[in-house]
Amino acid sequence: MKKFLNDPVNFVDEMLEGIYRAHPDVTYTADDKRCMVTSRPKTGKVGIATGGGSGHLPLFLGYVGDGMLDGAAVGGVFQSPSSEQMYQVTKAIDQGAGVLYIYGNYSGDIINFDMAAELADLDGIQVKQCVGNDDVASSKVGEEHKRRGVAGIYFVYKTAGAAAAEGLSLDEVHRLAEKARLRTRTMGVALSSCVVPEIGHATFSIGEDEMEIGMGIHGEPGISRKTLGTADAVIDEMMERIFAEQDYKSGDEVAVLMNGLGGTPLEELYILFRRVAQLLEGRGVKAKHVWVGEFATSMEMAGASVSILHLDAELDRLVAAPANTPFFKHFSA
Amino acid sequence: MKKFLNDPVNFVDEMLEGIYRAHPDVTYTADDKRCMVTSRPKTGKVGIATGGGSGHLPLFLGYVGDGMLDGAAVGGVFQSPSSEQMYQVTKAIDQGAGVLYIYGNYSGDIINFDMAAELADLDGIQVKQCVGNDDVASSKVGEEHKRRGVAGIYFVYKTAGAAAAEGLSLDEVHRLAEKARLRTRTMGVALSSCVVPEIGHATFSIGEDEMEIGMGIHGEPGISRKTLGTADAVIDEMMERIFAEQDYKSGDEVAVLMNGLGGTPLEELYILFRRVAQLLEGRGVKAKHVWVGEFATSMEMAGASVSILHLDAELDRLVAAPANTPFFKHFSA
Repeated sequence: MKKFLNDPVNFVDEMLEGIYRAHPDVTYTADDKRCMVTSRPKTGKVGIATGGGSGHLPLFLGYVGDGMLDGAAVGGVFQSPSSEQMYQVTKAIDQGAGVLYIYGNYSGDIINFDMAAELADLDGIQVKQCVGNDDVASSKVGEEHKRRGVAGIYFVYKTAGAAAAEGLSLDEVHRLAEKARLRTRTMGVALSSCVVPEIGHATFSIGEDEMEIGMGIHGEPGISRKTLGTADAVIDEMMERIFAEQDYKSGDEVAVLMNGLGGTPLEELYILFRRVAQLLEGRGVKAKHVWVGEFATSMEMAGASVSILHLDAELDRLVAAPANTPFFKHFSA
Repeated sequence: MKKFLNDPVNFVDEMLEGIYRAHPDVTYTADDKRCMVTSRPKTGKVGIATGGGSGHLPLFLGYVGDGMLDGAAVGGVFQSPSSEQMYQVTKAIDQGAGVLYIYGNYSGDIINFDMAAELADLDGIQVKQCVGNDDVASSKVGEEHKRRGVAGIYFVYKTAGAAAAEGLSLDEVHRLAEKARLRTRTMGVALSSCVVPEIGHATFSIGEDEMEIGMGIHGEPGISRKTLGTADAVIDEMMERIFAEQDYKSGDEVAVLMNGLGGTPLEELYILFRRVAQLLEGRGVKAKHVWVGEFATSMEMAGASVSILHLDAELDRLVAAPANTPFFKHFSA
């Protein structure tokens, strides 16, 4: 295990201490560093909260800030935070306009967020939920409720965060988050495993010349393992699955998130994005907003995912709105 | 070699195609994609140019934009761009106020930038130069002219870019860039090698439990290879070298760049930064501006570097000024 760490038991807490020391824009509530909230709350707006396991930076903590999220609870590496932690974040960020939970479709998170929502309800805090399930590889069409949430949740954060910043109601913010969720599709590919610090060895093994298409961000099995092809062939296979799911017409506009899983250099992400752009262009679809980099990782896992958000006028407006968080900054055009 | 690529010969050109397709804020001159210039030139200001080998994203290309650089020329992976490419960038960005070159202390780059400056002089374009040499590990005190330029060049870009955006003269922008250069120190550590695509195997080998303190960003030898210690011990050793070079007093302020070399997860960078912050605090030195992430990489190399800029009032102002480039965005406080 080749990692910079002290005692693996302290991996998450030392990481959190580093984050709070680096970024005065975020703080924590309930005397618990795992309950992050913005240091710059905006009065009266709908609160947006997320949460999930550690090990995916900049997901989840990285998006707490202006124009995005108001709070996030994190657990141990790849472990759900507790319902109590989610509830504490909820209480801290509620401004009387209600709170929207946005998180990925994993059973532990669902149980804990549901319980936090019940606790909040007893306090008179209205909570709505949006459960990200963008990973096309994790189940077939017609069984989308079984799909995992992966990097495409970024588009839901961006949309809902901008809508809340505009002062829209909880119902409206929820409607827009749901629209972004339903119009986002992601496909991923992994080349190597990550190492969970407290375990100390690779989560899975994969051959020196192999890739696994559709692998989840915790190492969940994908849909095919085979010899690593060219960058173009990998993207062709991934994009074919995405194109099959939404009816893209010439003239349509999309936002693209070309995401690295951690160990893959930015240079390679651009080589992959080049092919995504070519395929979109071939269909007459415009990549109107593009982000390339690391947005949802699995620590040192080599690999990438591509997420496509099918835009309409209101999604276009919200995705392009400004944001200023420790890990993600966006100037409006 | 586990990389997303097509023909390795096209690695740089396909990467560049991806960048231009993703980011309309940048374009290129002289019909050569390796000669990047901003798409939003500001009239009348001093131009800032950089350049160097590919394989270090977001260095060098990533800092072309508002408040930072106006142009960058890149070569093949770890290879200098040509003097002709640097000259073409110079011509394209000159607005009559002269051009400042900021690049790292590598012989190929020096020869080519010097020649480009001579060609520009024949056209009546005034050029000044600032050659980054922040890598403490690459030679001893008193022989700083032999030191390599590494991630700390980011502070020189940020300072000079902000000074040029303020409308200062070439002499002033050069003076400030030099001040930032002379007050910046970097120490790095590598845990694994990168793979140059056209070579196809690791540049160097290193044991499963070893680290190399002071290794350069192209794999140049460092100052010691030994068993990987704890994150705190690694930072203690690196910071001791940096503290020995500048006279830090209680009450002084610094900017910190905690940089990942490519393969190291963001979580670990925050664990490393935590210790940097503790050591600074122990000396009564305030980390006023902090950036943690990937700013100068060696593709998939695992490792990190820490750069410290010793602030004064004018560096404080310039480092904190806003910037908006494809890879680096900063809102003023």
